[in-house]
Amino acid sequence: MNKRSHFVGILGSMGPLATADFLSKLVLNTPANKDQDHIPVILHGDCTIPDRIEFINGKGPSPLPQLSEGIRFLNDCGVGVICMPCNTAHIWHAQLAAMSQAPLLHIVQSSADQISKKNPLAKKIGLLSTHSTHLSGLYHGPLQDRGFEVVSPTEKDFKVFINPAIDQVKANQIIPAEKTFTLVAQSLIERGAEVIILGCTEIPVVMKKQLAEKPSMYIDSNQALAQAVIDFFQNTKASAPQIV
Amino acid sequence: MNKRSHFVGILGSMGPLATADFLSKLVLNTPANKDQDHIPVILHGDCTIPDRIEFINGKGPSPLPQLSEGIRFLNDCGVGVICMPCNTAHIWHAQLAAMSQAPLLHIVQSSADQISKKNPLAKKIGLLSTHSTHLSGLYHGPLQDRGFEVVSPTEKDFKVFINPAIDQVKANQIIPAEKTFTLVAQSLIERGAEVIILGCTEIPVVMKKQLAEKPSMYIDSNQALAQAVIDFFQNTKASAPQIV
Repeated sequence: MNKRSHFVGILGSMGPLATADFLSKLVLNTPANKDQDHIPVILHGDCTIPDRIEFINGKGPSPLPQLSEGIRFLNDCGVGVICMPCNTAHIWHAQLAAMSQAPLLHIVQSSADQISKKNPLAKKIGLLSTHSTHLSGLYHGPLQDRGFEVVSPTEKDFKVFINPAIDQVKANQIIPAEKTFTLVAQSLIERGAEVIILGCTEIPVVMKKQLAEKPSMYIDSNQALAQAVIDFFQNTKASAPQIV
Repeated sequence: MNKRSHFVGILGSMGPLATADFLSKLVLNTPANKDQDHIPVILHGDCTIPDRIEFINGKGPSPLPQLSEGIRFLNDCGVGVICMPCNTAHIWHAQLAAMSQAPLLHIVQSSADQISKKNPLAKKIGLLSTHSTHLSGLYHGPLQDRGFEVVSPTEKDFKVFINPAIDQVKANQIIPAEKTFTLVAQSLIERGAEVIILGCTEIPVVMKKQLAEKPSMYIDSNQALAQAVIDFFQNTKASAPQIV
Protein backbone atom coordinates (compact mmCIF):
# COMPACT_ATOMS: atom_id res chain seq x y z
CA MET A 1 0.00 0.00 0.00
CA ASN A 2 1.23 3.45 -0.86
CA LYS A 3 2.35 5.39 2.20
CA ARG A 4 -0.32 8.07 1.76
CA SER A 5 -3.05 6.20 -0.13
CA HIS A 6 -5.31 6.77 2.90
CA PHE A 7 -4.96 10.57 2.45
CA VAL A 8 -7.32 12.71 0.39
CA GLY A 9 -5.57 15.34 -1.69
CA ILE A 10 -7.38 18.68 -1.87
CA LEU A 11 -6.59 21.02 -4.74
CA GLY A 12 -7.99 24.04 -2.99
CA SER A 13 -8.03 27.75 -2.12
CA MET A 14 -10.31 28.48 -5.10
CA GLY A 15 -11.44 30.40 -3.16
CA PRO A 16 -9.78 30.09 0.23
CA LEU A 17 -12.97 30.43 2.32
CA ALA A 18 -14.72 27.75 0.25
CA THR A 19 -11.83 25.36 0.99
CA ALA A 20 -12.00 26.05 4.74
CA ASP A 21 -15.75 25.37 4.52
CA PHE A 22 -15.10 22.15 2.59
CA LEU A 23 -12.60 20.93 5.18
CA SER A 24 -15.05 21.66 7.97
CA LYS A 25 -17.81 19.72 6.14
CA LEU A 26 -15.45 16.79 5.48
CA VAL A 27 -14.68 16.57 9.20
CA LEU A 28 -18.22 17.11 10.48
CA ASN A 29 -19.68 14.46 8.16
CA THR A 30 -17.10 11.76 8.88
CA PRO A 31 -18.29 9.16 11.37
CA ALA A 32 -15.61 9.48 14.07
CA ASN A 33 -15.02 9.01 17.77
CA LYS A 34 -11.45 10.26 17.83
CA ASP A 35 -8.89 12.11 15.68
CA GLN A 36 -7.59 8.86 14.20
CA ASP A 37 -11.04 7.96 12.78
CA HIS A 38 -11.00 11.02 10.50
CA ILE A 39 -9.61 11.16 6.95
CA PRO A 40 -5.99 12.34 6.64
CA VAL A 41 -5.62 15.31 4.30
CA ILE A 42 -2.99 16.99 2.19
CA LEU A 43 -4.18 20.40 1.02
CA HIS A 44 -2.44 22.16 -1.83
CA GLY A 45 -4.00 25.58 -1.39
CA ASP A 46 -2.43 27.80 -4.00
CA CYS A 47 -4.70 30.84 -4.01
CA THR A 48 -2.40 32.53 -6.54
CA ILE A 49 -3.80 30.28 -9.31
CA PRO A 50 -5.04 32.77 -11.94
CA ASP A 51 -8.73 33.61 -11.66
CA ARG A 52 -10.77 31.06 -13.58
CA ILE A 53 -13.55 33.48 -14.49
CA GLU A 54 -11.19 36.23 -15.70
CA PHE A 55 -9.43 33.77 -18.02
CA ILE A 56 -12.70 32.61 -19.52
CA ASN A 57 -13.65 36.25 -20.05
CA GLY A 58 -10.34 36.74 -21.92
CA LYS A 59 -8.94 39.01 -19.21
CA GLY A 60 -6.09 36.98 -17.70
CA PRO A 61 -3.71 34.02 -18.00
CA SER A 62 -4.87 30.40 -17.97
CA PRO A 63 -5.11 28.69 -14.58
CA LEU A 64 -4.22 25.33 -16.19
CA PRO A 65 -0.43 25.38 -15.58
CA GLN A 66 -0.84 25.99 -11.82
CA LEU A 67 -3.80 23.58 -11.58
CA SER A 68 -1.60 20.94 -13.25
CA GLU A 69 1.23 21.70 -10.82
CA GLY A 70 -1.15 21.08 -7.93
CA ILE A 71 -2.27 17.76 -9.39
CA ARG A 72 1.35 16.69 -9.90
CA PHE A 73 2.18 17.71 -6.32
CA LEU A 74 -0.70 15.69 -4.84
CA ASN A 75 0.19 12.67 -6.97
CA ASP A 76 3.82 12.94 -5.85
CA CYS A 77 2.51 12.88 -2.26
CA GLY A 78 0.82 9.57 -3.06
CA VAL A 79 -2.72 10.51 -2.02
CA GLY A 80 -5.46 7.97 -2.71
CA VAL A 81 -7.97 10.34 -4.26
CA ILE A 82 -8.10 14.03 -5.22
CA CYS A 83 -10.92 16.56 -5.06
CA MET A 84 -11.29 20.22 -6.04
CA PRO A 85 -13.76 22.20 -3.92
CA CYS A 86 -14.34 24.69 -6.76
CA ASN A 87 -17.00 24.13 -9.41
CA THR A 88 -15.58 26.47 -12.05
CA ALA A 89 -12.17 24.73 -11.94
CA HIS A 90 -13.99 21.60 -13.14
CA ILE A 91 -13.97 23.13 -16.62
CA TRP A 92 -10.42 21.68 -16.68
CA HIS A 93 -11.43 18.39 -14.98
CA ALA A 94 -10.89 16.15 -18.01
CA GLN A 95 -7.39 17.49 -18.65
CA LEU A 96 -6.42 17.21 -14.98
CA ALA A 97 -7.94 13.75 -14.53
CA ALA A 98 -6.00 12.54 -17.59
CA MET A 99 -2.68 13.52 -15.99
CA SER A 100 -3.55 12.19 -12.50
CA GLN A 101 -2.79 8.71 -11.29
CA ALA A 102 -5.11 9.18 -8.29
CA PRO A 103 -8.81 9.41 -9.24
CA LEU A 104 -10.06 13.00 -9.43
CA LEU A 105 -13.61 13.20 -8.07
CA HIS A 106 -16.12 15.34 -10.02
CA ILE A 107 -18.18 17.86 -8.05
CA VAL A 108 -21.02 17.88 -10.63
CA GLN A 109 -21.41 14.12 -10.31
CA SER A 110 -21.32 14.39 -6.49
CA SER A 111 -23.96 17.16 -6.51
CA ALA A 112 -26.23 15.46 -9.05
CA ASP A 113 -26.09 12.30 -6.91
CA GLN A 114 -27.74 14.26 -4.08
CA ILE A 115 -30.89 15.25 -6.02
CA SER A 116 -32.75 12.00 -5.44
CA LYS A 117 -31.88 12.16 -1.71
CA LYS A 118 -33.23 15.70 -1.39
CA ASN A 119 -36.36 15.41 -3.49
CA PRO A 120 -36.90 12.20 -5.50
CA LEU A 121 -39.82 13.75 -7.39
CA ALA A 122 -38.00 16.92 -8.49
CA LYS A 123 -37.90 17.56 -12.24
CA LYS A 124 -36.81 21.22 -12.39
CA ILE A 125 -33.39 21.93 -10.89
CA GLY A 126 -32.25 25.50 -10.22
CA LEU A 127 -28.56 26.13 -10.78
CA LEU A 128 -26.88 28.91 -8.83
CA SER A 129 -23.32 29.06 -10.16
CA THR A 130 -20.72 31.38 -11.63
CA HIS A 131 -21.43 32.71 -15.11
CA SER A 132 -18.45 30.67 -16.35
CA THR A 133 -19.87 27.41 -14.97
CA HIS A 134 -23.23 28.31 -16.53
CA LEU A 135 -21.72 29.07 -19.96
CA SER A 136 -19.52 25.94 -19.89
CA GLY A 137 -22.54 23.68 -19.52
CA LEU A 138 -20.72 21.76 -16.78
CA TYR A 139 -23.99 21.01 -15.02
CA HIS A 140 -26.45 21.26 -17.91
CA GLY A 141 -25.24 18.17 -19.81
CA PRO A 142 -25.16 15.76 -16.86
CA LEU A 143 -28.46 17.07 -15.44
CA GLN A 144 -30.24 16.86 -18.82
CA ASP A 145 -28.79 13.37 -19.34
CA ARG A 146 -30.50 12.38 -16.09
CA GLY A 147 -33.79 13.79 -17.35
CA PHE A 148 -33.83 17.04 -15.38
CA GLU A 149 -34.76 20.48 -16.67
CA VAL A 150 -32.29 23.21 -15.60
CA VAL A 151 -33.54 26.61 -14.40
CA SER A 152 -30.70 29.11 -14.66
CA PRO A 153 -30.37 32.72 -13.52
CA THR A 154 -30.85 35.34 -16.24
CA GLU A 155 -27.96 37.17 -17.89
CA LYS A 156 -28.91 40.21 -15.82
CA ASP A 157 -28.86 38.12 -12.60
CA PHE A 158 -25.27 37.05 -13.35
CA LYS A 159 -24.07 40.54 -14.20
CA VAL A 160 -25.87 42.58 -11.56
CA PHE A 161 -26.10 40.12 -8.66
CA ILE A 162 -24.09 36.88 -8.82
CA ASN A 163 -20.69 38.05 -10.14
CA PRO A 164 -20.38 40.91 -7.62
CA ALA A 165 -21.56 38.69 -4.74
CA ILE A 166 -18.89 36.04 -5.53
CA ASP A 167 -16.26 38.80 -5.45
CA GLN A 168 -17.65 39.87 -2.07
CA VAL A 169 -17.11 36.37 -0.60
CA LYS A 170 -13.51 36.36 -1.82
CA ALA A 171 -13.07 39.70 0.00
CA ASN A 172 -14.66 38.27 3.20
CA GLN A 173 -17.82 40.42 2.84
CA ILE A 174 -20.27 37.76 3.95
CA ILE A 175 -23.50 39.57 4.85
CA PRO A 176 -24.20 41.48 1.61
CA ALA A 177 -23.33 38.36 -0.42
CA GLU A 178 -25.78 36.27 1.61
CA LYS A 179 -28.62 38.68 0.85
CA THR A 180 -27.88 38.67 -2.87
CA PHE A 181 -27.65 34.89 -3.26
CA THR A 182 -30.85 34.39 -1.26
CA LEU A 183 -32.70 36.82 -3.57
CA VAL A 184 -31.49 35.06 -6.73
CA ALA A 185 -32.37 31.65 -5.23
CA GLN A 186 -35.86 32.98 -4.51
CA SER A 187 -36.28 34.04 -8.15
CA LEU A 188 -35.29 30.50 -9.30
CA ILE A 189 -37.93 29.04 -6.96
CA GLU A 190 -40.54 31.43 -8.39
CA ARG A 191 -39.59 30.19 -11.86
CA GLY A 192 -40.35 26.60 -10.83
CA ALA A 193 -37.11 25.20 -9.39
CA GLU A 194 -37.91 22.40 -6.95
CA VAL A 195 -34.31 21.88 -5.81
CA ILE A 196 -31.46 24.38 -6.14
CA ILE A 197 -27.85 23.32 -6.60
CA LEU A 198 -25.44 25.80 -5.01
CA GLY A 199 -23.01 25.11 -7.84
CA CYS A 200 -20.26 27.49 -6.76
CA THR A 201 -18.50 26.60 -3.52
CA GLU A 202 -18.43 30.26 -2.42
CA ILE A 203 -22.24 30.24 -2.18
CA PRO A 204 -22.94 27.68 0.60
CA VAL A 205 -20.28 29.43 2.71
CA VAL A 206 -22.60 32.43 3.03
CA MET A 207 -26.03 30.76 2.69
CA LYS A 208 -25.73 28.90 6.00
CA LYS A 209 -29.07 30.19 7.31
CA GLN A 210 -31.01 29.12 4.19
CA LEU A 211 -29.27 25.71 4.20
CA ALA A 212 -30.28 25.18 7.84
CA GLU A 213 -33.85 26.39 7.36
CA LYS A 214 -34.63 24.63 4.07
CA PRO A 215 -32.32 21.59 3.90
CA SER A 216 -34.49 19.74 1.39
CA MET A 217 -34.48 22.69 -1.03
CA TYR A 218 -30.71 23.13 -1.47
CA ILE A 219 -27.83 20.97 -2.65
CA ASP A 220 -24.55 22.28 -1.28
CA SER A 221 -21.89 21.25 -3.83
CA ASN A 222 -19.18 21.57 -1.16
CA GLN A 223 -21.03 19.21 1.17
CA ALA A 224 -21.77 16.83 -1.73
CA LEU A 225 -18.06 16.66 -2.62
CA ALA A 226 -17.13 16.08 1.04
CA GLN A 227 -19.64 13.21 1.15
CA ALA A 228 -18.13 11.75 -2.05
CA VAL A 229 -14.68 11.73 -0.38
CA ILE A 230 -16.09 10.00 2.71
CA ASP A 231 -17.91 7.44 0.52
CA PHE A 232 -14.72 6.83 -1.49
CA PHE A 233 -12.75 5.85 1.61
CA GLN A 234 -15.60 3.83 3.09
CA ASN A 235 -15.90 1.85 -0.16
CA THR A 236 -12.11 1.44 -0.35
CA LYS A 237 -12.06 0.09 3.20
CA ALA A 238 -14.97 -2.22 2.47
CA SER A 239 -13.24 -3.69 -0.58
CA ALA A 240 -9.73 -3.88 0.90
CA PRO A 241 -8.52 -7.27 2.13
CA GLN A 242 -8.98 -7.45 5.90
CA ILE A 243 -5.74 -7.66 7.84
CA VAL A 244 -6.44 -9.50 11.10
CA MET B 1 13.36 33.06 -3.71
CA ASN B 2 12.21 29.54 -2.92
CA LYS B 3 9.30 28.46 -5.07
CA ARG B 4 6.96 28.06 -2.09
CA SER B 5 8.41 30.49 0.45
CA HIS B 6 5.16 32.48 0.20
CA PHE B 7 3.21 29.42 1.46
CA VAL B 8 2.43 28.73 5.10
CA GLY B 9 2.84 25.10 6.10
CA ILE B 10 0.22 23.81 8.51
CA LEU B 11 1.00 20.73 10.58
CA GLY B 12 -2.59 20.01 11.36
CA SER B 13 -5.53 17.67 11.99
CA MET B 14 -4.78 17.62 15.72
CA GLY B 15 -7.73 17.62 15.85
CA PRO B 16 -9.28 17.84 12.39
CA LEU B 17 -12.08 20.27 13.34
CA ALA B 18 -9.61 22.61 15.05
CA THR B 19 -7.57 22.73 11.83
CA ALA B 20 -10.64 23.55 9.72
CA ASP B 21 -11.43 26.32 12.23
CA PHE B 22 -7.83 27.59 12.01
CA LEU B 23 -7.96 27.70 8.21
CA SER B 24 -11.20 29.62 8.31
CA LYS B 25 -9.73 32.15 10.79
CA LEU B 26 -6.60 32.52 8.67
CA VAL B 27 -8.75 33.38 5.63
CA LEU B 28 -11.25 35.64 7.40
CA ASN B 29 -8.52 37.70 9.09
CA THR B 30 -6.37 38.21 5.99
CA PRO B 31 -6.90 41.60 4.36
CA ALA B 32 -7.97 40.57 0.85
CA ASN B 33 -10.01 41.70 -2.10
CA LYS B 34 -9.54 38.59 -4.22
CA ASP B 35 -8.29 34.97 -3.99
CA GLN B 36 -4.77 36.00 -4.95
CA ASP B 37 -4.48 38.37 -1.92
CA HIS B 38 -4.82 35.43 0.50
CA ILE B 39 -1.94 33.34 1.90
CA PRO B 40 -1.16 30.13 -0.01
CA VAL B 41 -1.29 27.04 2.21
CA ILE B 42 0.08 23.53 2.31
CA LEU B 43 -1.69 21.49 4.97
CA HIS B 44 -0.20 18.23 6.18
CA GLY B 45 -3.21 16.92 8.05
CA ASP B 46 -2.25 13.53 9.38
CA CYS B 47 -4.97 12.80 11.92
CA THR B 48 -3.44 9.34 12.50
CA ILE B 49 -0.66 10.95 14.57
CA PRO B 50 -0.87 9.13 17.92
CA ASP B 51 -2.91 10.94 20.55
CA ARG B 52 -0.72 13.41 22.41
CA ILE B 53 -2.64 13.16 25.66
CA GLU B 54 -2.67 9.34 25.69
CA PHE B 55 1.10 9.24 25.20
CA ILE B 56 1.66 11.66 28.08
CA ASN B 57 -0.59 9.49 30.22
CA GLY B 58 1.59 6.49 29.32
CA LYS B 59 -1.18 4.85 27.29
CA GLY B 60 0.10 4.96 23.72
CA PRO B 61 3.02 5.48 21.34
CA SER B 62 4.86 8.78 20.99
CA PRO B 63 3.51 11.23 18.40
CA LEU B 64 7.04 12.54 17.77
CA PRO B 65 7.97 10.31 14.77
CA GLN B 66 4.85 11.35 12.79
CA LEU B 67 5.13 14.99 13.92
CA SER B 68 8.74 14.94 12.66
CA GLU B 69 7.63 13.41 9.37
CA GLY B 70 5.15 16.27 8.92
CA ILE B 71 7.83 18.87 9.61
CA ARG B 72 10.16 17.21 7.10
CA PHE B 73 7.36 17.08 4.51
CA LEU B 74 6.55 20.78 4.90
CA ASN B 75 10.24 21.71 4.71
CA ASP B 76 10.63 19.60 1.56
CA CYS B 77 7.72 21.60 0.11
CA GLY B 78 9.72 24.76 0.77
CA VAL B 79 7.12 26.64 2.82
CA GLY B 80 8.22 29.95 4.35
CA VAL B 81 6.88 29.34 7.84
CA ILE B 82 5.17 26.50 9.71
CA CYS B 83 2.46 26.52 12.35
CA MET B 84 0.70 23.84 14.42
CA PRO B 85 -2.91 24.64 15.35
CA CYS B 86 -2.72 22.34 18.40
CA ASN B 87 -1.50 23.58 21.79
CA THR B 88 -0.65 20.17 23.27
CA ALA B 89 1.61 19.31 20.29
CA HIS B 90 3.74 22.29 21.33
CA ILE B 91 5.18 20.08 24.08
CA TRP B 92 7.43 18.88 21.20
CA HIS B 93 7.94 22.39 19.75
CA ALA B 94 11.63 22.70 20.65
CA GLN B 95 12.51 19.33 19.07
CA LEU B 96 10.50 20.08 15.93
CA ALA B 97 11.82 23.65 15.58
CA ALA B 98 15.38 22.34 15.86
CA MET B 99 14.87 20.06 12.83
CA SER B 100 12.99 22.65 10.74
CA GLN B 101 14.61 25.03 8.31
CA ALA B 102 11.41 27.10 8.13
CA PRO B 103 10.60 28.95 11.35
CA LEU B 104 8.01 27.12 13.49
CA LEU B 105 5.66 29.64 15.11
CA HIS B 106 4.74 29.08 18.79
CA ILE B 107 1.05 29.20 19.72
CA VAL B 108 1.78 30.15 23.35
CA GLN B 109 3.79 33.17 22.24
CA SER B 110 1.03 34.13 19.77
CA SER B 111 -1.66 33.81 22.47
CA ALA B 112 0.32 35.65 25.14
CA ASP B 113 0.88 38.50 22.66
CA GLN B 114 -2.89 39.01 22.57
CA ILE B 115 -3.34 39.68 26.32
CA SER B 116 -2.35 43.35 26.19
CA LYS B 117 -4.71 43.87 23.21
CA LYS B 118 -7.65 42.29 25.05
CA ASN B 119 -7.17 43.80 28.49
CA PRO B 120 -3.97 45.80 29.14
CA LEU B 121 -4.70 45.93 32.88
CA ALA B 122 -5.27 42.19 33.36
CA LYS B 123 -3.06 40.47 35.92
CA LYS B 124 -4.84 37.15 36.43
CA ILE B 125 -5.07 34.95 33.33
CA GLY B 126 -7.35 31.93 33.22
CA LEU B 127 -6.02 28.98 31.25
CA LEU B 128 -8.49 26.56 29.71
CA SER B 129 -6.39 23.78 28.18
CA THR B 130 -5.89 20.03 28.09
CA HIS B 131 -4.58 18.44 31.25
CA SER B 132 -1.36 17.62 29.37
CA THR B 133 -0.79 21.27 28.40
CA HIS B 134 -1.51 22.23 32.01
CA LEU B 135 0.93 19.68 33.46
CA SER B 136 3.65 20.53 30.91
CA GLY B 137 3.72 24.17 32.06
CA LEU B 138 3.69 25.25 28.39
CA TYR B 139 1.75 28.42 29.25
CA HIS B 140 2.70 28.85 32.90
CA GLY B 141 6.38 29.69 32.33
CA PRO B 142 5.90 32.29 29.58
CA LEU B 143 2.90 33.88 31.36
CA GLN B 144 4.70 34.08 34.70
CA ASP B 145 7.79 35.51 32.94
CA ARG B 146 5.54 38.31 31.69
CA GLY B 147 4.32 38.98 35.23
CA PHE B 148 0.91 37.28 35.00
CA GLU B 149 -0.68 35.02 37.57
CA VAL B 150 -2.24 31.87 36.05
CA VAL B 151 -5.65 30.62 37.19
CA SER B 152 -6.02 26.95 36.19
CA PRO B 153 -8.95 24.53 36.36
CA THR B 154 -8.89 22.12 39.29
CA GLU B 155 -7.86 18.48 38.95
CA LYS B 156 -11.54 17.57 39.22
CA ASP B 157 -12.41 20.05 36.44
CA PHE B 158 -9.92 18.32 34.13
CA LYS B 159 -11.09 14.83 34.94
CA VAL B 160 -14.84 15.33 35.09
CA PHE B 161 -15.40 18.14 32.58
CA ILE B 162 -12.50 19.13 30.30
CA ASN B 163 -11.10 15.75 29.17
CA PRO B 164 -14.52 14.32 28.22
CA ALA B 165 -15.51 17.56 26.45
CA ILE B 166 -12.36 17.53 24.30
CA ASP B 167 -13.17 13.94 23.31
CA GLN B 168 -16.68 15.13 22.39
CA VAL B 169 -15.30 17.73 19.97
CA LYS B 170 -13.14 15.10 18.28
CA ALA B 171 -16.33 13.03 17.85
CA ASN B 172 -18.22 16.06 16.41
CA GLN B 173 -20.47 16.40 19.48
CA ILE B 174 -20.46 20.17 19.60
CA ILE B 175 -23.39 21.21 21.80
CA PRO B 176 -22.61 19.26 25.00
CA ALA B 177 -18.94 20.28 24.75
CA GLU B 178 -19.92 23.96 24.46
CA LYS B 179 -21.93 23.79 27.68
CA THR B 180 -19.09 22.15 29.60
CA PHE B 181 -16.37 24.56 28.50
CA THR B 182 -18.61 27.55 29.23
CA LEU B 183 -19.21 26.28 32.78
CA VAL B 184 -15.49 25.75 33.45
CA ALA B 185 -14.70 29.20 32.01
CA GLN B 186 -17.30 30.68 34.35
CA SER B 187 -15.61 29.03 37.35
CA LEU B 188 -12.25 30.56 36.31
CA ILE B 189 -13.90 34.00 36.13
CA GLU B 190 -15.37 33.48 39.61
CA ARG B 191 -11.86 32.68 40.82
CA GLY B 192 -10.57 36.03 39.56
CA ALA B 193 -9.52 35.43 35.94
CA GLU B 194 -9.73 38.70 34.00
CA VAL B 195 -8.86 37.17 30.63
CA ILE B 196 -9.18 33.50 29.67
CA ILE B 197 -6.88 31.84 27.16
CA LEU B 198 -8.65 29.08 25.25
CA GLY B 199 -5.39 27.14 25.19
CA CYS B 200 -6.64 24.06 23.36
CA THR B 201 -7.67 24.62 19.74
CA GLU B 202 -10.69 22.33 20.13
CA ILE B 203 -12.23 24.80 22.60
CA PRO B 204 -12.79 27.94 20.45
CA VAL B 205 -14.38 25.70 17.79
CA VAL B 206 -17.32 25.14 20.13
CA MET B 207 -17.28 28.38 22.20
CA LYS B 208 -18.28 30.57 19.25
CA LYS B 209 -21.20 32.16 21.11
CA GLN B 210 -19.08 33.14 24.12
CA LEU B 211 -16.34 34.49 21.84
CA ALA B 212 -18.87 36.63 20.00
CA GLU B 213 -20.61 37.86 23.16
CA LYS B 214 -17.51 38.58 25.30
CA PRO B 215 -14.66 39.22 22.84
CA SER B 216 -12.53 41.08 25.39
CA MET B 217 -12.72 38.21 27.90
CA TYR B 218 -11.33 35.41 25.73
CA ILE B 219 -8.13 34.76 23.82
CA ASP B 220 -8.69 32.19 21.09
CA SER B 221 -5.33 30.45 20.60
CA ASN B 222 -6.37 29.37 17.08
CA GLN B 223 -7.17 32.95 16.10
CA ALA B 224 -3.95 34.19 17.75
CA LEU B 225 -1.89 31.70 15.72
CA ALA B 226 -3.69 32.68 12.50
CA GLN B 227 -2.88 36.33 13.24
CA ALA B 228 0.78 35.40 13.83
CA VAL B 229 0.89 33.78 10.36
CA ILE B 230 -0.65 36.88 8.77
CA ASP B 231 1.80 39.16 10.64
CA PHE B 232 4.72 36.95 9.56
CA PHE B 233 3.91 37.38 5.87
CA GLN B 234 3.12 41.09 6.22
CA ASN B 235 6.49 41.66 7.90
CA THR B 236 8.24 39.51 5.29
CA LYS B 237 6.64 41.54 2.53
CA ALA B 238 7.52 44.83 4.23
CA SER B 239 11.19 43.83 4.57
CA ALA B 240 11.58 42.22 1.13
CA PRO B 241 13.28 44.24 -1.61
CA GLN B 242 10.64 45.82 -3.84
CA ILE B 243 10.65 44.50 -7.40
CA VAL B 244 9.27 47.26 -9.63
